[in-house]
Amino acid sequence: DSSFKIAVIPGDGIGKEVIPEGLRVLDRAGELFGITLEYQHIEWASCDYYLQTGKMMPDDWKAQLADVDAIYFGAVGWPETVPDHISLWGSLLKFRREFDQYINLRPARLFDGVPCPLAGRAAGDIDMLIVRENTEGEYTAVGGTMFEGTEREVVMQQSVFTRHGTDRVLRFAFEQARQRARKHVTVATKSNGVAVSMPWWDGRAAEMAQQFPEVAWDKQHIDALCARFVLQPQRFDVVVASNLFGDIISDLGPACTGTLGLAPSANLNPERRFPSLFEPVHGSAPDIYGKNIANPIGAIWSGALMLDFLGEGEGAGRRAHDAILVAIQKVLKDGPRTGDLGGKASTTEMGQAIAAAL
Amino acid sequence: DSSFKIAVIPGDGIGKEVIPEGLRVLDRAGELFGITLEYQHIEWASCDYYLQTGKMMPDDWKAQLADVDAIYFGAVGWPETVPDHISLWGSLLKFRREFDQYINLRPARLFDGVPCPLAGRAAGDIDMLIVRENTEGEYTAVGGTMFEGTEREVVMQQSVFTRHGTDRVLRFAFEQARQRARKHVTVATKSNGVAVSMPWWDGRAAEMAQQFPEVAWDKQHIDALCARFVLQPQRFDVVVASNLFGDIISDLGPACTGTLGLAPSANLNPERRFPSLFEPVHGSAPDIYGKNIANPIGAIWSGALMLDFLGEGEGAGRRAHDAILVAIQKVLKDGPRTGDLGGKASTTEMGQAIAAAL
Ligand SMILES: CC(C)[C@H](C(=O)O)[C@@H](O)C(=O)O
Ligand SMILES: CC(C)[C@H](C(=O)O)[C@@H](O)C(=O)O
Repeated sequence: DSSFKIAVIPGDGIGKEVIPEGLRVLDRAGELFGITLEYQHIEWASCDYYLQTGKMMPDDWKAQLADVDAIYFGAVGWPETVPDHISLWGSLLKFRREFDQYINLRPARLFDGVPCPLAGRAAGDIDMLIVRENTEGEYTAVGGTMFEGTEREVVMQQSVFTRHGTDRVLRFAFEQARQRARKHVTVATKSNGVAVSMPWWDGRAAEMAQQFPEVAWDKQHIDALCARFVLQPQRFDVVVASNLFGDIISDLGPACTGTLGLAPSANLNPERRFPSLFEPVHGSAPDIYGKNIANPIGAIWSGALMLDFLGEGEGAGRRAHDAILVAIQKVLKDGPRTGDLGGKASTTEMGQAIAAAL
Repeated sequence: DSSFKIAVIPGDGIGKEVIPEGLRVLDRAGELFGITLEYQHIEWASCDYYLQTGKMMPDDWKAQLADVDAIYFGAVGWPETVPDHISLWGSLLKFRREFDQYINLRPARLFDGVPCPLAGRAAGDIDMLIVRENTEGEYTAVGGTMFEGTEREVVMQQSVFTRHGTDRVLRFAFEQARQRARKHVTVATKSNGVAVSMPWWDGRAAEMAQQFPEVAWDKQHIDALCARFVLQPQRFDVVVASNLFGDIISDLGPACTGTLGLAPSANLNPERRFPSLFEPVHGSAPDIYGKNIANPIGAIWSGALMLDFLGEGEGAGRRAHDAILVAIQKVLKDGPRTGDLGGKASTTEMGQAIAAAL
């Protein structure tokens, strides 16, 4: 019997609606597979908290999370009242960076029963694993403005890539590919335009690839890569990308599989020195919040990734993950379905159906 | 009778195959609409030239182009022998910057007869105009490496945004939208992640929008925007973006309309202080070069944009542009079709058919 302590952070908007359904399914999976989950429910890391306190998180947030095994996260952001760069840099991006969750793992798969926006694609045609660098690169607050407020205003924004940060995400991607059937890695780049960092990134990729002779690889400029996601999505196996490019393709990939509502993600510190964080890819979606119509599958699948990671890919954790995926696929096929899938079910009904299918 | 001098630069790969077809159609349009085009054929700005001389262009390239009215451009790049950042920064990106072609205008439309990769979309459903900043932003060679070649290696890449450069592209986009039926602008951003330049960019957009009360607008993070191109492409009218984000969506948009082979672009210096440059969006495509199978429509449509711009949107230039578009649409509907459109026609056959349809 294994036992884990999970910090549960619903955050904002539909994060607060999907997380309860994720917990419903986690609890059921825990019962079935002998995994005990102890939850620490957290209200901070939300815009509500910010409006009350002027901060996204308490000063001792790290101490409060000192002994959790993982963070189960909804979504953060409420741009009407708090600018996104404040809410995100004060919470999600801080976790990723300060807990060194340097891998953002985002599978995208096309399932039966999901209306695919691409013509002529069937379940199984799309099955890719996006490996996104999650701590550095284009996501920085480094830079500044000269001649502020004048006609001569110039804004400089620094991207920062380290060999340490780049090599470890490339290595992780090649390791993942080695374990998959197709053993292929696509490296996203833009070395023809972004002329300092990206040619260097290409060089690191080429060097890493040499250590994995059994893995085939190619590199594609991000513009052409996005086009190919639409035109030939079946060609992709593992795709590795910088923070920004990974952000883009990990929204685009799931869109090609029908809806962002399905997409899960794992923000991993593979060495387990810090808690990893599991969250749906969709955001807080203010436009649909409060109606109980959000698709909880992204959150539920993220929960499955969490069990898999906590169980270190062995035994109960892996079995629970696989069973949840089977339950998700069954419900996608037979219904009920939320609006994004062409149905009318509520968030709660979807969660209940998946828990029941388990 | 109007008369213009055009520098013709085929460049590399399929650039050399599509440009002759573009010229064929331009010549025919010139005859029909009383426009005289004088060509200056140029072999530099190609990787062949680089391999012979060690430079992409001669030192006096500017002088050689001093009296041309426009540049008609194929594609540059042959990564097998010349790294992309060298070939592109030494030619295309130099033109854009030194000729201050600060607007990159890229229409994307879904036409009858083109197999659309998106399910259930019909001609007319997609009709967007992408307005891309073309001289600054993320495309810089500014930055450098510390601790080079060691484990501690750190690479810094600067993005540079000016108020001058940002405001003029935003203004251009809103002006375009004002002339269109739907009068809507979408502003691409990533202010939740790229924390210095993008929040500032959002502020510039909000300020510009105030000057266009008759134009509706919204802003979308680039990740969500790419997803929406696939899920709801009909929602977009004018989309304005930074250099990098514009690059990405102007490949993705055309991909959603069936093939990059159709997509044209106009690199404009709207004030006409310098020659503007017209080129298909597709690149040199080494994989299909030499087979005479590339789709020349991107080049032909770019030629139409050139006539329209040279004619300042009035009289013969506009009429020639419109007639070429009608001819393209006729051939797309009735054939012949190149491979990317599901047919077997050669590049030459397509060019001939469009010239004949004119
Ligand atoms: C070739 C490359 C430098 C160029 C760009 O990124 O601008 C191309 O992709 C384009 O879109 O014109
Ligand atoms: C909310 C935002 C900062 C975040 C990101 O860009 O990383 C989100 O889009 C994601 O993909 O997790």
